[in-house]
Amino acid sequence: MTSPRHDGRLPDQLREVRLTRGWTDHPEGSVLVEFGRTRVMCTASFTPGVPRWRKGSGKGWVTAEYAMLPRSTNTRSDRESVKGKVGGRTHEISRLVGRALRAVVDTSALGENTVHLDCDVLQADGGTRTAAITGAYVALADAITWAQAQGHVKKGAKALTGSVSAISVGVVGGRAVLDLDYPEDVSAGTDMNVVCTGDGRFVEVQGTAEGAPFDREELDGLLDLALLGCALLTEQQQRVLATPAP
Amino acid sequence: MTSPRHDGRLPDQLREVRLTRGWTDHPEGSVLVEFGRTRVMCTASFTPGVPRWRKGSGKGWVTAEYAMLPRSTNTRSDRESVKGKVGGRTHEISRLVGRALRAVVDTSALGENTVHLDCDVLQADGGTRTAAITGAYVALADAITWAQAQGHVKKGAKALTGSVSAISVGVVGGRAVLDLDYPEDVSAGTDMNVVCTGDGRFVEVQGTAEGAPFDREELDGLLDLALLGCALLTEQQQRVLATPAP
Amino acid sequence: MTSPRHDGRLPDQLREVRLTRGWTDHPEGSVLVEFGRTRVMCTASFTPGVPRWRKGSGKGWVTAEYAMLPRSTNTRSDRESVKGKVGGRTHEISRLVGRALRAVVDTSALGENTVHLDCDVLQADGGTRTAAITGAYVALADAITWAQAQGHVKKGAKALTGSVSAISVGVVGGRAVLDLDYPEDVSAGTDMNVVCTGDGRFVEVQGTAEGAPFDREELDGLLDLALLGCALLTEQQQRVLATPAP
Amino acid sequence: MTSPRHDGRLPDQLREVRLTRGWTDHPEGSVLVEFGRTRVMCTASFTPGVPRWRKGSGKGWVTAEYAMLPRSTNTRSDRESVKGKVGGRTHEISRLVGRALRAVVDTSALGENTVHLDCDVLQADGGTRTAAITGAYVALADAITWAQAQGHVKKGAKALTGSVSAISVGVVGGRAVLDLDYPEDVSAGTDMNVVCTGDGRFVEVQGTAEGAPFDREELDGLLDLALLGCALLTEQQQRVLATPAP
Amino acid sequence: MTSPRHDGRLPDQLREVRLTRGWTDHPEGSVLVEFGRTRVMCTASFTPGVPRWRKGSGKGWVTAEYAMLPRSTNTRSDRESVKGKVGGRTHEISRLVGRALRAVVDTSALGENTVHLDCDVLQADGGTRTAAITGAYVALADAITWAQAQGHVKKGAKALTGSVSAISVGVVGGRAVLDLDYPEDVSAGTDMNVVCTGDGRFVEVQGTAEGAPFDREELDGLLDLALLGCALLTEQQQRVLATPAP
Amino acid sequence: MTSPRHDGRLPDQLREVRLTRGWTDHPEGSVLVEFGRTRVMCTASFTPGVPRWRKGSGKGWVTAEYAMLPRSTNTRSDRESVKGKVGGRTHEISRLVGRALRAVVDTSALGENTVHLDCDVLQADGGTRTAAITGAYVALADAITWAQAQGHVKKGAKALTGSVSAISVGVVGGRAVLDLDYPEDVSAGTDMNVVCTGDGRFVEVQGTAEGAPFDREELDGLLDLALLGCALLTEQQQRVLATPAP
Repeated sequence: MTSPRHDGRLPDQLREVRLTRGWTDHPEGSVLVEFGRTRVMCTASFTPGVPRWRKGSGKGWVTAEYAMLPRSTNTRSDRESVKGKVGGRTHEISRLVGRALRAVVDTSALGENTVHLDCDVLQADGGTRTAAITGAYVALADAITWAQAQGHVKKGAKALTGSVSAISVGVVGGRAVLDLDYPEDVSAGTDMNVVCTGDGRFVEVQGTAEGAPFDREELDGLLDLALLGCALLTEQQQRVLATPAP
Repeated sequence: MTSPRHDGRLPDQLREVRLTRGWTDHPEGSVLVEFGRTRVMCTASFTPGVPRWRKGSGKGWVTAEYAMLPRSTNTRSDRESVKGKVGGRTHEISRLVGRALRAVVDTSALGENTVHLDCDVLQADGGTRTAAITGAYVALADAITWAQAQGHVKKGAKALTGSVSAISVGVVGGRAVLDLDYPEDVSAGTDMNVVCTGDGRFVEVQGTAEGAPFDREELDGLLDLALLGCALLTEQQQRVLATPAP
Repeated sequence: MTSPRHDGRLPDQLREVRLTRGWTDHPEGSVLVEFGRTRVMCTASFTPGVPRWRKGSGKGWVTAEYAMLPRSTNTRSDRESVKGKVGGRTHEISRLVGRALRAVVDTSALGENTVHLDCDVLQADGGTRTAAITGAYVALADAITWAQAQGHVKKGAKALTGSVSAISVGVVGGRAVLDLDYPEDVSAGTDMNVVCTGDGRFVEVQGTAEGAPFDREELDGLLDLALLGCALLTEQQQRVLATPAP
Repeated sequence: MTSPRHDGRLPDQLREVRLTRGWTDHPEGSVLVEFGRTRVMCTASFTPGVPRWRKGSGKGWVTAEYAMLPRSTNTRSDRESVKGKVGGRTHEISRLVGRALRAVVDTSALGENTVHLDCDVLQADGGTRTAAITGAYVALADAITWAQAQGHVKKGAKALTGSVSAISVGVVGGRAVLDLDYPEDVSAGTDMNVVCTGDGRFVEVQGTAEGAPFDREELDGLLDLALLGCALLTEQQQRVLATPAP
Repeated sequence: MTSPRHDGRLPDQLREVRLTRGWTDHPEGSVLVEFGRTRVMCTASFTPGVPRWRKGSGKGWVTAEYAMLPRSTNTRSDRESVKGKVGGRTHEISRLVGRALRAVVDTSALGENTVHLDCDVLQADGGTRTAAITGAYVALADAITWAQAQGHVKKGAKALTGSVSAISVGVVGGRAVLDLDYPEDVSAGTDMNVVCTGDGRFVEVQGTAEGAPFDREELDGLLDLALLGCALLTEQQQRVLATPAP
Repeated sequence: MTSPRHDGRLPDQLREVRLTRGWTDHPEGSVLVEFGRTRVMCTASFTPGVPRWRKGSGKGWVTAEYAMLPRSTNTRSDRESVKGKVGGRTHEISRLVGRALRAVVDTSALGENTVHLDCDVLQADGGTRTAAITGAYVALADAITWAQAQGHVKKGAKALTGSVSAISVGVVGGRAVLDLDYPEDVSAGTDMNVVCTGDGRFVEVQGTAEGAPFDREELDGLLDLALLGCALLTEQQQRVLATPAP
């Protein structure tokens, strides 16, 4: 119980988190997010107009795509473009990221505009989907600020109803820990990804027993830890967004 | 709070659940599962041998594929075979069903054998993925019994370490309800799918805020309800499995 | 010559045929057709409007898709959606079913409306394509009745110019037999599928020598038998359609 | 009845048929077949060895692929390679050509060798599939002769048990005619493709009512005509094969 | 230096080149081009109208697709349509052919019309892409003449600003040679494809060191040879185009 | 003639070039290459063993894949994985990078080992393919050093026979310039990519007239400039490789 984690962290300690805004020049929002060695490039592409099925609704659309570069992991994976299809895991995470971000968007206030969020994993060391959500929020915020400055979105409109961040928690060596890196992820008995709003409510809870099923008490402990982690990430998002976009 | 649900059920009441074993003749396990009007054909195909990457491990493999027939829903959907790719939702649910069933399989006891679970939705009225898991367990149990009778799996081996079932819960009209049908699903603020073992532990918890984010108290209420629902389903699974396979 | 067929039928005897209307609730026409153990779910989906290339023609469109569930057969087949392409046999039968049904549709009387026929084989024991055509006709008739009741198609319009059914015939053990089941199909020297209208004319004749080529006399015998089989199926279609749709 | 056909032919007259052997240099058998303006390049590629599923059987394999060049027709069609999938019609004809040729191959005598038949339509004017089968037979015969000369197939072995040819017949302007060109094909009420062996037996009969269903008498007339057409083609195949391969 | 090439040609000698116009009947321009044993069927399909992205621009579009028939080569290749994707080499050559032809088209003079160039290799013996470009130019010229006669393109408009041809050069056995056939291509140290206009300027230069890198002097020698080869091809193009289209 | 370039560079001046080794942790070689604002992540993945078709040859294999992230450009492009196929331009550049690197690899000295080079464009501002080749060489060098240290490749073996770099040159505003950025690339009349070895010989020369065809003199001027540019890049590659891998 009292042995330290393999990298010396406390059970409820995040890895070093960095959010670099304006990491590339073209996108309306561009953030490099790092959770320790996990590095994800998040871009928000703002386009006036919406897909055909949404035209005339007065509402906007936010969608996300997640992908891993072939050598972001320890062993090279084949490209999904070369295989000619998107894999199940990629599909699943892309959908998760999209839902998470839409939870804090008022599409009416956004107006008939579309934001594509692209989260490309440059280096993976566990927690890529939670890093992606956390970084994508900052990119989205910058893109909306840009759109308001450009007049695509009304100045007063509150297109964002709040903020969103995400963290993983899990049971490793019989103990609940926060923000698992890859070695911890592999050995975790239970693995849970939690998406929260900045005011501490849940947007998504996804827990999976990798080994033995878990009971209610373990679940409760993990949820506590996740709320804590998201609160820390929210703080950091607010800090980086306190200055104007680069 | 006290108004009845649109179909007259109590908040903690399942729809009528039916599990028909031996529904088709070819598969080693074949179950038609019905949760009210939701009807899913679950088959378990047992094959000696394992995929190449697992050869020589002494361990078996269990995998699942979920799909909806084009007119299982109110409006016809295009076939994924004709579109040439499996959609994100299909991918996601197939993976969920596979993980759920593997949670109660001892692959060493199964030996180098493979079970394919196919869950095809004939009619959809909400809860197709939870019905699929609940029915697939029964089909899997029958397939393993068959394999033991045939000598493919050792007689004494406990290839199944327990049972598994799944149910949806959600907040509809401000109230937590069990086993949402399609009209409830559409209007639910929060939607959660929970997979439990027969002894009441969690295998998977997937909760999503469709509208407003949900707080810890709501989450706790939903988890209580889900545990109850799974207990009822477990009972029914045990009852139908008490007789020999047809 | 005088030995009975492996299941005791006479050479010119159909398997037990059942046509269950209203088998599922969503489609405008929904029929479960059974030719012995062969079971095909046929749905007719009626949609106002036509594909772009037919707009403004005043004419409707009827199209069909056939597919087999992965474990409808004795050995599991991979899903075509997962393989990412529709196989040659599936393509061929889908086209056959579509042509067969269009042969009895007056697309001008149908008006600019589309009917999608989906024929999904739940259990296969020979004759799936002929069962599909026979069942799809009943589903189509119900969908058109529905559309007339809804006012999508003019009340007086004769969108159906007749009925259509289909049967297989073949030479098994040197003898011409009607409605081959799977074991007969496998051992047949010649295999023929015949689609007829209710008034005994041919819509489609497809005969293939699986083993030795066949001569004119054999062909004549098979055609006689097929006309008889289709007449029996027509009678049954008329009987089930004599009552209002469920 | 007595008006000539649009190109002056008699009802039972073929278009000018040409079979040019050795049309290209690389293949083991290479034939340009012309039925009037219809031109199909047929190649037979002989490869020692068989697909994996047939290894150790002692038997060979013959398979066929049919395709149309994008501007073989009056209006350009998109390439199936660019669309990323083979269309239903292409699939259907490829399968027909393969079955037709396999009907005259003794795969045991062929030994564990594979012949790929490729039929590429350079110019289409009706009857492309029947021309393909008729030409492919000659290419196949040349490839087998080559393989026997090379010692891949035993000298005495009768890998070909007979010859095969194919012709279309149809009802045009109320009259049964042989070998329809494109304008006739388009206006035909009934369209039938017939594959026969050199000794006048049927390998495949495929008749389709394009307009009104057809009765037994019409069918009989068409079959008579088809047998005549195939006999004429057989004669021509024998004549060109009487000389050594170029 | 003084030994003859394997087929007896001089270093700066083309193979026999033939350009047969009107080779098939349907296309607006149809040319069979032969560089020795290399044979490519080039068709130009003229269609009024342009792709959506170019509508209203007043400008036309010219695009090309190159492909090899499966047995155009010594060993059969799988069809790209069956593999479900276009290979890299095919893509690359299609793009090259398109760029080459667009270099001599004034799309404003062409007006809002599209020309599809299809280059299908019937027999390959080296130089298929250069033959394709050389033949496609003649087909394009015929299609534009046709379009002017039909009134689709203004009579006076100079839609073609010049002519274009292409040739390969390479270093074989230490010596620069013109128009490599397949055996030379395989043994070439350096291989270069050059596209020139009729007035001797470059449209495209693509040189690749297959073995050792090449120096500036070698490059200069190859460019000299290529200019000579293109001049000879230009002359031949002009000669065949001097007579009216067949 | 004497006006400066839009960013103030001299005609023969490169943008600022940076080569950052060890940019990510997992790959055996990992380089971030920057040509001004163009940023490409190049990884070299070393795997013992070769593809099946090369087994037993004693020789290794080097292959490359190039891709652009969806928002590396000014306007977002759809992902090729989502579209289900690799585009022509991507294919073409991947093949170019592979050929370029293989030109300096002695596959016999490499032994039966494979190196995958992945070049992913994070930000595009012209010259992505030349930056990719220049960076990939450094990643490849690091991977081979690693493999020798690990004993996968023999210590003394000279798996690299030289170095390789690439640069673009073009005619912009009537003047030959080196290393075009995106605005220059768009307005260039002629565009050429040149790959050279460290000792100043050519591996690949690809020149395209985007506007008017170019003459021999212009071509000569561009080649001079390209040789200069590659020499400068070679120097920088040598400088960064002079220190041990990070």
